[in-house]
Amino acid sequence: MSSGYDVVGIGNAIVDIIAPADDEFLAQHDISKGVMTLIDAERAAHLCGALPMAQEAAGGSAANTMAGLASLGAIGLFVGKVKADRLGESFASGLRELGVRYTTPMADGGPPTACCIIAVTPDGQRSMSTYLGASRELTPADISDADIAAAEVLYIEGYLWDMPDAKAAINKAIAAAKANRRKVAFTLSDPFCVGRWRAEFLALLKDIDILFANEEEAKALFETEDFDAVLQKTRIWPGIAALTRSEKGCVIAQGVEVHVLDAAPVERVVDSTGAGDQFAAGFLYGITHGKGLAQAGRLGGLAAGEVISHYGARPETSLRTLAADAGLV
Amino acid sequence: MSSGYDVVGIGNAIVDIIAPADDEFLAQHDISKGVMTLIDAERAAHLCGALPMAQEAAGGSAANTMAGLASLGAIGLFVGKVKADRLGESFASGLRELGVRYTTPMADGGPPTACCIIAVTPDGQRSMSTYLGASRELTPADISDADIAAAEVLYIEGYLWDMPDAKAAINKAIAAAKANRRKVAFTLSDPFCVGRWRAEFLALLKDIDILFANEEEAKALFETEDFDAVLQKTRIWPGIAALTRSEKGCVIAQGVEVHVLDAAPVERVVDSTGAGDQFAAGFLYGITHGKGLAQAGRLGGLAAGEVISHYGARPETSLRTLAADAGLV
Repeated sequence: MSSGYDVVGIGNAIVDIIAPADDEFLAQHDISKGVMTLIDAERAAHLCGALPMAQEAAGGSAANTMAGLASLGAIGLFVGKVKADRLGESFASGLRELGVRYTTPMADGGPPTACCIIAVTPDGQRSMSTYLGASRELTPADISDADIAAAEVLYIEGYLWDMPDAKAAINKAIAAAKANRRKVAFTLSDPFCVGRWRAEFLALLKDIDILFANEEEAKALFETEDFDAVLQKTRIWPGIAALTRSEKGCVIAQGVEVHVLDAAPVERVVDSTGAGDQFAAGFLYGITHGKGLAQAGRLGGLAAGEVISHYGARPETSLRTLAADAGLV
Repeated sequence: MSSGYDVVGIGNAIVDIIAPADDEFLAQHDISKGVMTLIDAERAAHLCGALPMAQEAAGGSAANTMAGLASLGAIGLFVGKVKADRLGESFASGLRELGVRYTTPMADGGPPTACCIIAVTPDGQRSMSTYLGASRELTPADISDADIAAAEVLYIEGYLWDMPDAKAAINKAIAAAKANRRKVAFTLSDPFCVGRWRAEFLALLKDIDILFANEEEAKALFETEDFDAVLQKTRIWPGIAALTRSEKGCVIAQGVEVHVLDAAPVERVVDSTGAGDQFAAGFLYGITHGKGLAQAGRLGGLAAGEVISHYGARPETSLRTLAADAGLV
């Protein structure tokens, strides 16, 4: 490997606050089911107070991906902003314990560390209310050109676009990756996020080498209701499209190369949180370790299959062991 | 159109004898559940006698496809052998009423018209016992080079390979199609049929322009358990592969062109019999009417969706009307 890191991931540094809830709770508190909604500090405090039996876990989409990459044995750096408060310390130690490097300076003042309040209904769906807090404070000074240059892949999450102040930091990172001929990978994050930033995401495609999107996100990006239309759009774009389709598996396409891969068998889907994040982890592990597109897609499916078979958005079993058992590494 | 027929289909001319049965009946009569087994005349007579409340319906895989093509408004000819007995007359009138041309001379002597005894268990599964009877008597004299030359596509079913005596007729038909630069379409019919004739089917691929296979059949042909491996095999073959995947929809591939199409929405799957036959009908209608591969695949999905929403292997609703309502024709 010519560089120090397999992947540098940039994303919102968020602590998840997870609790079981019923549909009545969602209705009572006006929570949109199954999607991610941005909330302010006041509403965050209100929801936290109303949810019984909440558990905390370090989260954030790209941070979860970095955790998955570490579980596979990859070397990664995470960039994202927390405040120097209890949740911020918890986020940082959560990543470091897994072996992910995390050096972004904590904010001393300003808003508290970001949190995502996740209400899990009995049907296994998660409804997320995100307070971005300190994660909005990411600045160009937090981006080290040398770190970007030292990584084979720069991975950025679409959720970052919800923080207009952080855009200068993202642009700096992409410019550094391009200047050093590093690959840029991007996840569309969420169909509503695509709705908010569609024009910018389309313009961004010219700088992207690897696009992660689930079916709904990709349909929102290309404004179509037809999956095959999405596939044909991605195929006239030069990058690698990794299109995930839940129980239908995934389609990986780059120009004339197309793979249609089944989902990894899962005994029971317990909680779909983090499926996309872990798919990206497995896929990026494959791409940074000399695997072809099909093998990378299978690694993505394996990692996603692990994370949806239990609560929480990060692996509970060594992905490296699972991948070895499956003959994928 | 430069020719008189859209499609000439060659297949076993079979009358279906359908009756409800329980698992005890299957066990008592040693019937393998969910698959097609070949039986002799004695066993056919025995099973017919044992099954109460049987209903007759003209069937046969390629004949069902021709019925679907007629329902879409295509012009077709069916070639297959019956005896001049009651079931033979029933088969012939069943096709002609739908507007399918059928001119194969009936056998005066020899075995009776073929029948397929279908035991339908309460779980909706169909266990088929096929007595090939007169359909085995197809000879080269039944194949008209002029008819083959007059059709845009020659469509043949893999089940024909179970009749070694009919092979000369099939070879004559393929030679006539090739000599007249007509397309040859072929369905693998059944995974067990592929198991019986795998080497011959692989050798046949060089003469095939359009291959129909469901996932299990295609996996049996290429001896793999991985759908993507099937897809990659078909893509280095120059023909069109139409790979059907039940509720997962279908994948249509020809070299660098690949389409991943969802299954048509179906309220309730009542009886999956004929899904493959009708997919072929819709697809061949598209191919013979100037539609691209994606549109042809959608027509196939639409026709399959109609036939699985009711009992029986032929359309009950005008496929032409359904296709028009869906904006596909």
